[in-house]
Amino acid sequence: MATGPRVTVWNEFRHERKDEAVAAIYPNGIHAVLAGALREAGLTARTATLDEPEHGLSAAVLDETDVLLWWGHLAHQEVADEIVGRVQERVLDGMGLIVLHSGHFSKIFKRLMGTTCNLKWRESGDRERLWVTAPWHPIAAGLGEYIEIEEEETYGEHFDVPPPEATVFVSWFSGGEVFRSGCCYTRGSGRIFYFRPGHETHPTYRHPDVRRVIVNAVHWAAPTPGAPRRFGNTPPVEQRA
Amino acid sequence: MATGPRVTVWNEFRHERKDEAVAAIYPNGIHAVLAGALREAGLTARTATLDEPEHGLSAAVLDETDVLLWWGHLAHQEVADEIVGRVQERVLDGMGLIVLHSGHFSKIFKRLMGTTCNLKWRESGDRERLWVTAPWHPIAAGLGEYIEIEEEETYGEHFDVPPPEATVFVSWFSGGEVFRSGCCYTRGSGRIFYFRPGHETHPTYRHPDVRRVIVNAVHWAAPTPGAPRRFGNTPPVEQRA
Amino acid sequence: MATGPRVTVWNEFRHERKDEAVAAIYPNGIHAVLAGALREAGLTARTATLDEPEHGLSAAVLDETDVLLWWGHLAHQEVADEIVGRVQERVLDGMGLIVLHSGHFSKIFKRLMGTTCNLKWRESGDRERLWVTAPWHPIAAGLGEYIEIEEEETYGEHFDVPPPEATVFVSWFSGGEVFRSGCCYTRGSGRIFYFRPGHETHPTYRHPDVRRVIVNAVHWAAPTPGAPRRFGNTPPVEQRA
Amino acid sequence: MATGPRVTVWNEFRHERKDEAVAAIYPNGIHAVLAGALREAGLTARTATLDEPEHGLSAAVLDETDVLLWWGHLAHQEVADEIVGRVQERVLDGMGLIVLHSGHFSKIFKRLMGTTCNLKWRESGDRERLWVTAPWHPIAAGLGEYIEIEEEETYGEHFDVPPPEATVFVSWFSGGEVFRSGCCYTRGSGRIFYFRPGHETHPTYRHPDVRRVIVNAVHWAAPTPGAPRRFGNTPPVEQRA
Repeated sequence: MATGPRVTVWNEFRHERKDEAVAAIYPNGIHAVLAGALREAGLTARTATLDEPEHGLSAAVLDETDVLLWWGHLAHQEVADEIVGRVQERVLDGMGLIVLHSGHFSKIFKRLMGTTCNLKWRESGDRERLWVTAPWHPIAAGLGEYIEIEEEETYGEHFDVPPPEATVFVSWFSGGEVFRSGCCYTRGSGRIFYFRPGHETHPTYRHPDVRRVIVNAVHWAAPTPGAPRRFGNTPPVEQRA
Repeated sequence: MATGPRVTVWNEFRHERKDEAVAAIYPNGIHAVLAGALREAGLTARTATLDEPEHGLSAAVLDETDVLLWWGHLAHQEVADEIVGRVQERVLDGMGLIVLHSGHFSKIFKRLMGTTCNLKWRESGDRERLWVTAPWHPIAAGLGEYIEIEEEETYGEHFDVPPPEATVFVSWFSGGEVFRSGCCYTRGSGRIFYFRPGHETHPTYRHPDVRRVIVNAVHWAAPTPGAPRRFGNTPPVEQRA
Repeated sequence: MATGPRVTVWNEFRHERKDEAVAAIYPNGIHAVLAGALREAGLTARTATLDEPEHGLSAAVLDETDVLLWWGHLAHQEVADEIVGRVQERVLDGMGLIVLHSGHFSKIFKRLMGTTCNLKWRESGDRERLWVTAPWHPIAAGLGEYIEIEEEETYGEHFDVPPPEATVFVSWFSGGEVFRSGCCYTRGSGRIFYFRPGHETHPTYRHPDVRRVIVNAVHWAAPTPGAPRRFGNTPPVEQRA
Repeated sequence: MATGPRVTVWNEFRHERKDEAVAAIYPNGIHAVLAGALREAGLTARTATLDEPEHGLSAAVLDETDVLLWWGHLAHQEVADEIVGRVQERVLDGMGLIVLHSGHFSKIFKRLMGTTCNLKWRESGDRERLWVTAPWHPIAAGLGEYIEIEEEETYGEHFDVPPPEATVFVSWFSGGEVFRSGCCYTRGSGRIFYFRPGHETHPTYRHPDVRRVIVNAVHWAAPTPGAPRRFGNTPPVEQRA
């Protein structure tokens, strides 16, 4: 029986249904392949997509979600603000969030970061090499010195996000760019990881090291017990005892 | 003639018009006293308030603003989202922002932080002592080891903000609480400083050290020349030359 | 059978042998009480003291140590530089280090921090209240909003250490000071936690919440699998394949 | 008359006296070219080298130094520990320090960082492109999106330093590596900047953008007025008034 963090993989699921090249790589959707990677690692994973009611992210689903993965690209604007608010609240209350690739422009990521989250990009099939810049980090567990991806979309700096609390990967691209590809944040009681690779026209989510990073990141982002967050009008602690 | 950063002091300006006790302390509004402190230090300062058209924050005004101060409390919800978006954009493009006291719950601060910005509070006239925890920081210039304020509203941890990039002050309150009272952030090309003291029922903005910190913070937050932020579809740099 | 991180508790063990008041609180030494707290939590703990050969920190002992606790005060200068170098190397290779109270002035902590690690202090039996400023952090697991200690030595800011990567606690003292009492760092592959309380004339290490924090910190500081750190002359990665 | 920060450029000055290829590029030493760049920008610059008495770093010289530049490579071990201690103390008291290229392995940098400061390297004349990752930072003022250097020594991650407080540049190398090439730290009251480029066999310190960064870094690292750092036995602040 699966134990450990319960994951919900959210995918926009539009490219795969309208673009044959993408469908050839991800016939059942990017979410299916990501959920497969998680299950292979013994984790409990369900999926949710944009066109389901409430985008598949009802309060009941989030109640059973320890870590949420997010992949979106074409339809960020179609995600309802109410659902974005609901997800934000859950993250601040401790749910982990892993934002993948073009999810950098999602409403939820921009809302949690407070910046434009903009970057340079190019669909040219560059070679990408993700160097580990925080070898001690559990998200890097089991990797070598770098991850090599034959062909990917290029992202280039400047990446307009708050300074990461830890930068686990920095990418090298054959066309001449670099990119901070693995960025860790804490917000409220929640942990957030942005992981760059995963363009829909490349089979990146079948790459063993990419899958390993996502599994590691789920374990890192899962809520841990902490102290309570209490707010509001409070009598002097000196008089409470 | 005044040189240096051009400051706009934004104030909600409601307490002062409806509460005699507040009016006694700030008869022309908190903004007037803050602007006075800045002018005394040789800075150019204008004011803007909630009930002016566009809350006094037209594009033209922001064009002439290097650093924006923000004080609000009762009417955060009345600030139009469009104006909040405009201010956010300016901050990301380099305008400094200094958020004062109850401004922690303003739309603009919450939007830039991505968190609830919640905290504990108590209106009991505690003694507050702000200890300098980053003595090297230019915002602490000219201070002693701490700032002492006879009576203030108490704020207590946990303060639900992203981990500050620098924490310049930590407050001690006589009722038993502590608070990170001087928090620095960079977002986009902009610098943000949150400074805790300044409850409307105490003459805090007449305190010489508090005024000094605000002047220092204006100088720190003022835009500095940097490199351009460029985004979007980009050919390989290797082919640009 | 004990599992999890193997801990070595290092103690200078001088106060307890020359000062009756201290011996009354810690008759077998501070290390014995700390090791007891760890064993109670199911961890493997051994002890080592200054006056043992190699201060009890032979290469063989360190080979079997996942996390090292450090308490010292009177005799920092008697710790041999060679042993300090050996411990530093182990930390950079991944061994966790928890520095307690007056250990702030130990050679090993100063060497890892690069600063004076100086602070204000006063032996006046102030009340100390450690507020949780990072409620999400696993080191705060199981605590309430704060830890209260009836009587402790006071430490006051400014604490001359590098900016912590996470600040888990900030202390309030009844005499009027504050202090960053729980400071997290990563150095090389190792995790370091500085935890303030624990003056030898108070029974602080018998306090349930203090013991809980130390157990939590051991789990946090224990080495996690990561990626290899490789250095030196390296052919172009492009030619390696 | 020169105003602004007074700079001392420290150079090991060995390569230039024993290697004709290096002498051809830097006939009067790397320090002479660096001091020239600073003077061109209107700064006061003196030089100091390893083989002078006290390595040219007497207390009197340091008394007149606001920012110290450090270039060394062959003879790190010949720098006297006493001088290293003296420089460290000055940095903690507020003197800026800019560590250049192979200075990553200097005693002073390792002592201030607390880590091995190790990295990968290769003398292959790769093309280096330093991308600006903190465009808002004053050290990046006046640059474009990146600095391009035709031929340089390669440094590769992992760079074993504490997580930088700001990372201004990340380098791309044509052989396939990346490197965090502009790293900012605060230690005590001092600011430290590590800047990667500058191998002795390449005319890197004649590159206009490299010179501009060094001038910018001097301005950033120069001491600013702050609050006093006071330490030691202290009566309760509550009883001082």
